[in-house]
Amino acid sequence: MEKLGFNPRTTAYPMPVALVGSTVDGRPNFMAVAWFTKVNSRPPMIMVALGKHKHTAQGIKENNCFSVNIPGEDKVTETDYCGTVSGRHEDKSTLFDVFHGNTKAPMIMGCPINYELTLTDTIETPGNNLFIGEVVGAYVDEDKRTGETPDLTKAKPFMLIESPPSHYHGLGHQVAEAYNVGKRLKQPKT
Amino acid sequence: MEKLGFNPRTTAYPMPVALVGSTVDGRPNFMAVAWFTKVNSRPPMIMVALGKHKHTAQGIKENNCFSVNIPGEDKVTETDYCGTVSGRHEDKSTLFDVFHGNTKAPMIMGCPINYELTLTDTIETPGNNLFIGEVVGAYVDEDKRTGETPDLTKAKPFMLIESPPSHYHGLGHQVAEAYNVGKRLKQPKT
Repeated sequence: MEKLGFNPRTTAYPMPVALVGSTVDGRPNFMAVAWFTKVNSRPPMIMVALGKHKHTAQGIKENNCFSVNIPGEDKVTETDYCGTVSGRHEDKSTLFDVFHGNTKAPMIMGCPINYELTLTDTIETPGNNLFIGEVVGAYVDEDKRTGETPDLTKAKPFMLIESPPSHYHGLGHQVAEAYNVGKRLKQPKT
Repeated sequence: MEKLGFNPRTTAYPMPVALVGSTVDGRPNFMAVAWFTKVNSRPPMIMVALGKHKHTAQGIKENNCFSVNIPGEDKVTETDYCGTVSGRHEDKSTLFDVFHGNTKAPMIMGCPINYELTLTDTIETPGNNLFIGEVVGAYVDEDKRTGETPDLTKAKPFMLIESPPSHYHGLGHQVAEAYNVGKRLKQPKT
């Protein structure tokens, strides 16, 4: 198979989509974000990457807290809207029913999974703020669980596919059992 | 709908899976990573979060470069193996056919998408190194494109679902067009 170059700015893997919540000028605001990841296990920490001049960045700096809400497929329209319009120009505060944990970070009732975070560190890249938060609360809709645990096949999160054209895709079929399917592949000892 | 708490250490969203390549003690080594994200657009930068004592972390520090390879579903067994066994104990150097760009970062021929990165910054969380790299090369299999661009419906990347039990899932159906479906949702001006 021949390898060919492509534009290095193209993100060629699926990105899970979240709505990042913050309080800005006293109002709840939400922004769609596809650049985020876990960055620590004990304590649990999530990092979100946002443009430095985003309205949400202002809110996180003001209140030292934010939320990461995972929308289901039924909220794809609202999520897309929150990714294309700034809270500086349109008021997103009444778009969702909001609840709070122990911080000022607004969370979305209509999203099946919600994380509440306190800001622990801010890193700068040339164009973005990387906000690292410690997870201080995690909430799931009662009917989106199996046993005590969130069940993503019920929560129906979606991913952003950028290369092209840009679409949101749902979660597909089960490919294999993690931490198990590779066990048979022993390699020589070093 | 009632909101219930869950273990804040549980990652309750799909995580794309990559194989991070580095040269360690002169040998190519690959580690499966689900904690990574884009963190800058111009120039393109990707961040990967790895345990501080990982063999791969040593290789990145030694050579100031690494690769991010996106496996297709046909490599799920090898990927899972690379996520469960350290290169410190078993020799992963012959598991894949390797190619190089302009750095010492080994890339995997059998993965349809490959990014080559030079290390620009290292951040520490309590348990992890966050390695930020600038993308200096991007490669795609000739037959995994539509036009000039990588096509993920052909590349067939997969996601790790942690909550429970842990499985890999493929990309599912198209939910909506991004940067478009939300346009109808005008909210009041601020």
